[in-house]
Amino acid sequence: MRDVAIIGIGQTKIDEHWDKSLRELAGDAALAAMADAQINQVDGIYVGNMMSGIANQQGQLGAMVSDWIGQRFTEASKIESACSSGSAAFRMGALAVASGEVNVALVVGVEKMTDSPSDEITAGLATAADADWEVDHGLSFVALNALIMKRYMFEYGWGSIDFAPFAINAHANAVHNPFARFRNTINEDIFVKSAMICDPINLMDASPIGDGAAAAILVPVELLNAQSPRIVVAASTAATDSIAIHDRKSPLWLSAAEKSSKEAYAQAGIQAEDIDVFEYHDAFTIMAALSLEANGFAEPGKGPALAKEGEISLHGKIPVATRGGLKARGHPVGATGMYQIAEVVQQLRGEAGETQITDPEFGMAQNIGGSGSNIVTHILKRVG
Amino acid sequence: MRDVAIIGIGQTKIDEHWDKSLRELAGDAALAAMADAQINQVDGIYVGNMMSGIANQQGQLGAMVSDWIGQRFTEASKIESACSSGSAAFRMGALAVASGEVNVALVVGVEKMTDSPSDEITAGLATAADADWEVDHGLSFVALNALIMKRYMFEYGWGSIDFAPFAINAHANAVHNPFARFRNTINEDIFVKSAMICDPINLMDASPIGDGAAAAILVPVELLNAQSPRIVVAASTAATDSIAIHDRKSPLWLSAAEKSSKEAYAQAGIQAEDIDVFEYHDAFTIMAALSLEANGFAEPGKGPALAKEGEISLHGKIPVATRGGLKARGHPVGATGMYQIAEVVQQLRGEAGETQITDPEFGMAQNIGGSGSNIVTHILKRVG
Repeated sequence: MRDVAIIGIGQTKIDEHWDKSLRELAGDAALAAMADAQINQVDGIYVGNMMSGIANQQGQLGAMVSDWIGQRFTEASKIESACSSGSAAFRMGALAVASGEVNVALVVGVEKMTDSPSDEITAGLATAADADWEVDHGLSFVALNALIMKRYMFEYGWGSIDFAPFAINAHANAVHNPFARFRNTINEDIFVKSAMICDPINLMDASPIGDGAAAAILVPVELLNAQSPRIVVAASTAATDSIAIHDRKSPLWLSAAEKSSKEAYAQAGIQAEDIDVFEYHDAFTIMAALSLEANGFAEPGKGPALAKEGEISLHGKIPVATRGGLKARGHPVGATGMYQIAEVVQQLRGEAGETQITDPEFGMAQNIGGSGSNIVTHILKRVG
Repeated sequence: MRDVAIIGIGQTKIDEHWDKSLRELAGDAALAAMADAQINQVDGIYVGNMMSGIANQQGQLGAMVSDWIGQRFTEASKIESACSSGSAAFRMGALAVASGEVNVALVVGVEKMTDSPSDEITAGLATAADADWEVDHGLSFVALNALIMKRYMFEYGWGSIDFAPFAINAHANAVHNPFARFRNTINEDIFVKSAMICDPINLMDASPIGDGAAAAILVPVELLNAQSPRIVVAASTAATDSIAIHDRKSPLWLSAAEKSSKEAYAQAGIQAEDIDVFEYHDAFTIMAALSLEANGFAEPGKGPALAKEGEISLHGKIPVATRGGLKARGHPVGATGMYQIAEVVQQLRGEAGETQITDPEFGMAQNIGGSGSNIVTHILKRVG
């Protein structure tokens, strides 16, 4: 099995892109990554996308991307695991390179959500939940997360305001990210006054949808110049849990995140405390809290305390959402995992500008599909 | 890169399964494959599916299958490339095993189509075509194939009746396959009198949809007893072409099939004439003809002649659709590629009963996504 390095990244701004089609978004990110890597040919394409069939009436994005970026005839396919589709595609690309079958892999996550009717998007997002045991009873995806949050608040005694620090931190960082959808700061007052979406989830607890694409180029380390510094995939893991929340050991514990990150720490030969930057999956503030706990950064029920104490900020113990997170950078669902990867690469390269972490060595990206049912974790490392 | 062997297969009958949900179908095939392989645990799950989001309001089939078959927490994802989703998933599973990352991979293709409204299924199938350049102009998927067939008939001078041998051969073989949807023979008279669907494609030119699932278990050859006979993956390749047909070099030539099979023959170290059995993608009779031509079994425009001469029958030069093909076994789109794999394994094991080819060594399965835009080819070999 060959070691894998990331030699190029590309992102589009997350926005309402009325003037860009699905193929143009994917192509813009893919071509930016190829330019960054200084290559003009790839031999395997892996597209992460959740809902283009429903939202854009378009399937087989592999062939679509391959043709559009001038790589016609190159093998290509799409990988889907709800909101973790982007990083699931990244893992497939990494395995293809590791196997020896592919020498230059392009991974691109893409989603175009804002010019579809909102009932289509709600229905599309609901495919992340269990059709038989959840959605058929009228539960939308945000409603499932609201039930988890309500139970969490009851069990651990937190109030709505205690979740504000997650959103405030994300917005503070997004200000400096040109690819972020919402580049404005927020404060407790704005948080408290924001509209209720699905009690107890308010508008500032929830990440916004958007149109966007992010991409990376993967090659085997053995093909690189041995002297030059590089970003390598130090760990790549994935784990599942039941889709339906009622069927889990506990609705308040992300077992798949715990399994995935424990295996990732072991692969990389490190502990949780060695992670210098963590791009987590803050689709809702409750998921931010549960992520910090399941991955070993906070005790059960103490995620909000860690945020309150400032430990998730750029200079805290575990900086998160350093480019805005899902909350403020935006959450074009199937693309998000690749934004996380690109952002960790920016940090490890020292290209994160005003939100640069000091001299990071290990960065972790964790992408959550469903409300914890399919979780993909990557640890990237700067070498040299 | 490790060599990969198939140690188990499983299939459900293709039918209108009113009493089986999507997860039950996938589970039945997966568990049958695990029983066949005599294993009770897997460490990677790859699900091929095209349209569950649209047809069943269910995404992330990876987590769904993993949980349902008692493999909760195992990594799992879904792969999609329209009608070649099944074999695209197989290729991902094979790469995961080849890479050293996964030791026991389960690949399952599944589709449940018959209890969805027909407009949903038509819309779902249309996602295989180009949303911007084909579907928006009102073309359904069958209409695109009809245009290709019309042009083919014009260019090469064939009549409708000349395509009958493809369908007659498929039905003759399906009679003996307990998993096939239509186990009845047809003849030229039935072919000629069958209803027109989309001129010149009649009902007997077209494969039927259906509900079904097929699965396989993959392991590295190095973990097997060196003495025992085995079925190995001698070649695994994939190639794309433009989704929109107008944009291809020729609408009558499957360039991606040609590229994919040429690479596959090279990987396996053989020529087209060494293939003993070919499970081809006869979604429409025109695709059967084009497949024979692009893969080196017939000259351009001569596919129907090969069929007429009986060379595609069980005792001909290149036996095809030996278990009924898409035409008579049925075409549950995202599952089809895995049925093809399972059928080739049956042939190589000598378990194909009344349709057994004599002593085959090499079997090829080729799965076509879209009208030729994403093509995956596997050559399996019997060793020992």
